[in-house]
Amino acid sequence: MSRTLWTGDDGVLRTIDQTALPFERRELALRTVDDCDRAIREMQVRGAPLIGAVGAYGLALALRVDASDGALRRAAERLAAARPTAVNLRWALDRVRERVAAAEPGLRAALAWDEAGRICDEDVACNASIGEQGARLLRALAEQRSVLAGVAGADALALNLLTHCNAGRIATVDHGTALAPIYLLHAEGVPVHVWVDETRPRNQGASLTAWELGQHGVPHTLIADNAGGHLMQHGLVDLVITGSDRVTRNGDVANKIGTYLKALAARDNQVPMYVALPSSTFDFALRDGVANIPIEERDAAEVRCMSGKTAGGTLESVQICPDDTPARNWGFDVTPARLVTKLICERGLCDASEAGILALFPEQR
Amino acid sequence: MSRTLWTGDDGVLRTIDQTALPFERRELALRTVDDCDRAIREMQVRGAPLIGAVGAYGLALALRVDASDGALRRAAERLAAARPTAVNLRWALDRVRERVAAAEPGLRAALAWDEAGRICDEDVACNASIGEQGARLLRALAEQRSVLAGVAGADALALNLLTHCNAGRIATVDHGTALAPIYLLHAEGVPVHVWVDETRPRNQGASLTAWELGQHGVPHTLIADNAGGHLMQHGLVDLVITGSDRVTRNGDVANKIGTYLKALAARDNQVPMYVALPSSTFDFALRDGVANIPIEERDAAEVRCMSGKTAGGTLESVQICPDDTPARNWGFDVTPARLVTKLICERGLCDASEAGILALFPEQR
Repeated sequence: MSRTLWTGDDGVLRTIDQTALPFERRELALRTVDDCDRAIREMQVRGAPLIGAVGAYGLALALRVDASDGALRRAAERLAAARPTAVNLRWALDRVRERVAAAEPGLRAALAWDEAGRICDEDVACNASIGEQGARLLRALAEQRSVLAGVAGADALALNLLTHCNAGRIATVDHGTALAPIYLLHAEGVPVHVWVDETRPRNQGASLTAWELGQHGVPHTLIADNAGGHLMQHGLVDLVITGSDRVTRNGDVANKIGTYLKALAARDNQVPMYVALPSSTFDFALRDGVANIPIEERDAAEVRCMSGKTAGGTLESVQICPDDTPARNWGFDVTPARLVTKLICERGLCDASEAGILALFPEQR
Repeated sequence: MSRTLWTGDDGVLRTIDQTALPFERRELALRTVDDCDRAIREMQVRGAPLIGAVGAYGLALALRVDASDGALRRAAERLAAARPTAVNLRWALDRVRERVAAAEPGLRAALAWDEAGRICDEDVACNASIGEQGARLLRALAEQRSVLAGVAGADALALNLLTHCNAGRIATVDHGTALAPIYLLHAEGVPVHVWVDETRPRNQGASLTAWELGQHGVPHTLIADNAGGHLMQHGLVDLVITGSDRVTRNGDVANKIGTYLKALAARDNQVPMYVALPSSTFDFALRDGVANIPIEERDAAEVRCMSGKTAGGTLESVQICPDDTPARNWGFDVTPARLVTKLICERGLCDASEAGILALFPEQR
């Protein structure tokens, strides 16, 4: 498969409109900073690593029109505000700004475009490495499971993973974070099965993760977000694995709303909880995720309505509550570090603690 | 407002078709055991106390056609299988069977009809008492909150409750269980606000609880099931209150899938978790809810699709995942007694423990 984000000689950024999935694979051409800003805000592109990359290209596109310091700052601020929780966006914008800061205005757009390309290449390499690191862990768990099944005289059973939201290929430039190790194991022939949380209100699990896993032939089952605790109580989940939008210096994990509830259930049932992330998802400046990570609040309509395909094959949005019902819609929650078994980074696994994280990233001491 | 279930001189049982809510108030006439069985299975009526009452009337309607011992047994077994988790259904069927067991076949249908009416009257009285018992508790919490607000120099803030699924008037013959105390407090002028979990996959929160609270003018806000943990981490929930479908002798609580996740979040944030139930919801024969309460598995289509109102005003079901995505759909989960602060019964509050429950129900020792 190709990358989620690609460019051609025409200087246009192209991606897949994720709001059209799983029913249509619609390509999206992003030609201006406005296009990028809108694509991020309306979640045509989503996933912390991917919006970082699109933000970087957005800055480059802004600089094509006006390469002044003021325009650079304004475009960066505007893009950073498009989605406040995922730190990769700010990180990518900062990288582009640093790259072009000392350059002549006439060179800035090209430098920024090049830097955005580097960010994409690094994301791909990072996620490939996360896949390898995570696969080593999953292989060990699968072998343990297979040994236990052998002792019980049973056939080797599939390793059952539960994931929330979409931290797959289309949340990144390629490979994915949480799903990267799963793809590797599946390709090796290790039997894996993924419980896919539908992930209300935007249903990234039902519409994106189920679609992605289906495309790759990975066995999976869609469940309501409410079901994970029941599954864990009955031994039907071997591990939980998710991506992240921001991880603090001490290991607190901001991720799609509802992740915290799954982490609590995992802890209550001695199920390990893993979080996969590239280093660009760390926010080394923060030490208390619940207190300090800004949590995006989105349009209440996302809770009051739901989109899908009718029996007639048309796409339709339906309202699921009375006309006058008020709703609130927070996009993320924070899973405290104490509930996270390990972080899976491109450099390896570490404890979700300042000591664990800094042992892997000593340059941040 | 009138009762959720009513009968007239024509010997027909009438109720509201809850699958048409919140968009239409459609009355349903139940004339045969088939009608009752279908209404329960298809969730036109739902809520543990209400399906108990409909089951009792269903048995009476069956006896009108065939009052033999064999027909009685077959009808009871069939109705009991309609929804396996809620124990009120079995309890109500047992009551009717006991009432008619020694009677001549010619008298059985009338006796059963009378017993079903008694079950309804008792349910109404029970829930009124649950309301009083719960309101006493909520009043104390609201006063505590008001004192704290006074100390902080703030205005008295509303008491924030979070509920899951629908344990309101329409889950019972009248008053509701979890919502009964809320209605009383609201009527007294105590400021209350309810966070309403949408309660996927059947959306009883969005379609029924939001509707019911709206009808009564109780301030409320619809949220995704995923949001409760975030709200509790940020001090936005003063207590969680739900109904139940079955409570074991030791206090384990079966309730709508996802309740367990909210109970875990409540415990993690020192938020009290209350469960309101009439005594017919106890299953004194069971001692381990997770191991022993049968959990109903329903049609995967309920997870794969969602119903609602289009912008054009028509009701429509939309599919939210790819065509070939497999799904599983468990209807309930079990919250272990250790996570429950108190049970609110018609006789008073008790600890969710065998000692606590038997102190309130000594006849079950």
